[in-house]
Amino acid sequence: MRHFITLADFEKAELESLLDMAERIKKGEVKPDLSGKNLILLFFNPSLRTRTSFELAMKQLGGNVVTLNAGGDTWKLEFKDGVVMDGDAAEHIKDAARVLGKYGDGIAVRAFPRGTNWEEERRDPVIKAFLDHAGVPIINMESSLYHPNQVLADIMTIREYYGKDLRGLPVTLSWAYHPNPLPMAVPDSFLLGACIFGMDVRFLRPEGYDLDPEIMERARKLARKAGGNLKITDDFKDGLSGSKVVYAKSWGSLKYYGDREAEREYRQRYRNWIIDREKMEMTDGAYFMHCLPVRRNVVVTDEVIDSSRSIVYDEAENRLHAQKAVLSFIFSE
Amino acid sequence: MRHFITLADFEKAELESLLDMAERIKKGEVKPDLSGKNLILLFFNPSLRTRTSFELAMKQLGGNVVTLNAGGDTWKLEFKDGVVMDGDAAEHIKDAARVLGKYGDGIAVRAFPRGTNWEEERRDPVIKAFLDHAGVPIINMESSLYHPNQVLADIMTIREYYGKDLRGLPVTLSWAYHPNPLPMAVPDSFLLGACIFGMDVRFLRPEGYDLDPEIMERARKLARKAGGNLKITDDFKDGLSGSKVVYAKSWGSLKYYGDREAEREYRQRYRNWIIDREKMEMTDGAYFMHCLPVRRNVVVTDEVIDSSRSIVYDEAENRLHAQKAVLSFIFSE
Amino acid sequence: MRHFITLADFEKAELESLLDMAERIKKGEVKPDLSGKNLILLFFNPSLRTRTSFELAMKQLGGNVVTLNAGGDTWKLEFKDGVVMDGDAAEHIKDAARVLGKYGDGIAVRAFPRGTNWEEERRDPVIKAFLDHAGVPIINMESSLYHPNQVLADIMTIREYYGKDLRGLPVTLSWAYHPNPLPMAVPDSFLLGACIFGMDVRFLRPEGYDLDPEIMERARKLARKAGGNLKITDDFKDGLSGSKVVYAKSWGSLKYYGDREAEREYRQRYRNWIIDREKMEMTDGAYFMHCLPVRRNVVVTDEVIDSSRSIVYDEAENRLHAQKAVLSFIFSE
Repeated sequence: MRHFITLADFEKAELESLLDMAERIKKGEVKPDLSGKNLILLFFNPSLRTRTSFELAMKQLGGNVVTLNAGGDTWKLEFKDGVVMDGDAAEHIKDAARVLGKYGDGIAVRAFPRGTNWEEERRDPVIKAFLDHAGVPIINMESSLYHPNQVLADIMTIREYYGKDLRGLPVTLSWAYHPNPLPMAVPDSFLLGACIFGMDVRFLRPEGYDLDPEIMERARKLARKAGGNLKITDDFKDGLSGSKVVYAKSWGSLKYYGDREAEREYRQRYRNWIIDREKMEMTDGAYFMHCLPVRRNVVVTDEVIDSSRSIVYDEAENRLHAQKAVLSFIFSE
Repeated sequence: MRHFITLADFEKAELESLLDMAERIKKGEVKPDLSGKNLILLFFNPSLRTRTSFELAMKQLGGNVVTLNAGGDTWKLEFKDGVVMDGDAAEHIKDAARVLGKYGDGIAVRAFPRGTNWEEERRDPVIKAFLDHAGVPIINMESSLYHPNQVLADIMTIREYYGKDLRGLPVTLSWAYHPNPLPMAVPDSFLLGACIFGMDVRFLRPEGYDLDPEIMERARKLARKAGGNLKITDDFKDGLSGSKVVYAKSWGSLKYYGDREAEREYRQRYRNWIIDREKMEMTDGAYFMHCLPVRRNVVVTDEVIDSSRSIVYDEAENRLHAQKAVLSFIFSE
Repeated sequence: MRHFITLADFEKAELESLLDMAERIKKGEVKPDLSGKNLILLFFNPSLRTRTSFELAMKQLGGNVVTLNAGGDTWKLEFKDGVVMDGDAAEHIKDAARVLGKYGDGIAVRAFPRGTNWEEERRDPVIKAFLDHAGVPIINMESSLYHPNQVLADIMTIREYYGKDLRGLPVTLSWAYHPNPLPMAVPDSFLLGACIFGMDVRFLRPEGYDLDPEIMERARKLARKAGGNLKITDDFKDGLSGSKVVYAKSWGSLKYYGDREAEREYRQRYRNWIIDREKMEMTDGAYFMHCLPVRRNVVVTDEVIDSSRSIVYDEAENRLHAQKAVLSFIFSE
């Protein structure tokens, strides 16, 4: 039984095989048959792309899919073991996981961090409970640490523009300003994914916006293993010149995790971290990428995202195809 | 590519062809095959009939359908172009539209007006964004101005009782009292639909409850074109005598749009605008129609809606059949 | 046309036939074909197991299913007849029922009591409105009085451990402490179900926690008819010794119905009503059962629910199989 929690759980060759499958599915050359398979989508947080693309992926492949909004359609869940449950939570996550594992052949879970205690949240307790108790393959639809389906689609998109051998491809992962301290799952996953594929990664972020130290360390090791490179910089010129891809994303500072006000105040000095024409012109004709949703004229200007170098809608479309490959993989193991 | 935004976008002959199809579907004579088609239903407002009938229509015809509650399942959307998105909205409607257009072969949208600024809201910015950006057929599940699927089912119902040639059929569209200022999409659409089909339309409403001037003007032109008639009156006798159909609906006054308190106070003088036996007896044995949901004993008495002349449940049932014809139409164009 | 409102509407032989069907479905020996059938699930309250298992049951049997969250996806409903609907409710339940009956071949409804007026709520006005007005088979997914699908799955589970002849099987239905006064549908239904099958039922609850008098009286009659027994006690030893099954559940006291504070205060003296190892050791090696969701270390200790004698996940899984039998039954009548 294989899960799909983070790209870093897979060898590069396995991911390439997934991507090849996704491309063949997109071209209509193959259509996996998931009839008789039952997938449960469990959302602890809102979703547009992920929900729509997973529901359609299952339906188009002939499988059954049930979507649950935890806390909305259901009730509050307890996450800690051994607790006397006399508070708000009416059910323990381990019981919900065991029961859903009885109904579904696979469970896909979205559970964002709460933004209060990183040491606890970085352990992804919801995902972990499902891995420990559900007894069926688990798909991560975005946790505190990872958003592997997004980045699989992103790499599929990069391959469509630059070919299958991505070693040495100069790509910039750039932090951007945003009114709120956002989760880090997407930059974490993009950094890991780009390093797995041996790209020449420029991690462009202001002081205070490094990702979780274990993610940074893992990315360095993956880059070395793949013969790629990982450079960290806060200088636009240094981070952008020569780049073929600018992948923009905002996230909150771990230094101020749990203190939204302090983080907000600190972040104000970086309001100029917006991807605009000036920054794109520092690159080597880079494509602009973003996972969406994106705040226009905050993270990126209308001019850039609406330009012919913007491939954000390809990324979104490829979610559908990449996830079909993932579903085909976990249900055939 | 054809959309389904308002009946007024279609020639009478086209609508008759849709209605013929709907009737054949209802009788089981034809069953369009929508296998391989993917419809996304996007609700910015609650729904019972529309949601259930669209979901079942797609499923019964073999297609895939995904339902999204905007703002509930997803997040707040920005509607204005060029805005610096540093407020509540996390995604621009144009990006949501483009992405959903990548996933769906068609998108059906419900977006009520907010009740604050009619000049803005009458332009139906949500529908317009989807028309401009989604790149796939758009179905209007009720906007500020139109509710074409409701009225297509209504006209189908009238045909079941009075035959296919509706020219000259005396029908009354009557305003009714209600505690809240409701949207105008249904009366707008019924007025247009009845005029397209050349009915003898009596628009019965109190002073201050005319519909949007452009709708009124368009209805007049459509009535002339079809050889029908449109009379506007606030006199019950004048509006009801000889009528074969009483179509009741409440809506808010445009004179007080955006000022709920003033509108409420103004409306109090018309509390007697309820469809009761006395008013029905002024007609020529009219059938009672209403789109539902309806407030009993406010808009219509129990006695009238529960009488044998009430055909409100036929209207509701015909939603399913009429929408199958619409889906078949937009997916075959 | 048959409904599925309470087990007490059925003869024991009919229920045994349903259970036999459920077991054959579980083993894969039969698969009812519900293609062309349309089920509407209407939830007035949250759900995890019931929603997931009903959706999957329909899909796996080839039918169509639409899920509605009343009040969330739709609007407030009026329940009283003859009311002038100028308050919050935008639609009368009878109109919603009639309309949904036009769309669905069956309607499954969940409507918990509100906890304010037992004399009104015990009449299950929502279920009653659907029975009176929908014109199609109605399935009770938990009302004020009954949760028949839960208990059908429970009895299926007991049969898996103790065989088909359950006459004389000593089972304990035990009240348990809980921070909130919960509904009584599950204990009502379990008591009736156990008595229908002629079990040796020990109803173990503290003073003040008897169920509705009509339920108690009906259970006594059913026990007599089936040659079983119903003992009521508040003594742990008396209620547990010799038992082969401990079915735990919390519920609120009818004596304090509608007065949450008084009920809470009264209930505090029974905080020791938790199913723990000590109580399980009073039984004859009983299995532990609970319908879930359960508050761990309040209703039952981790030690008991995680022990090898706990069969709560079997109960949950059997929901799927038992409901398939129910669906097959109501759609074939």
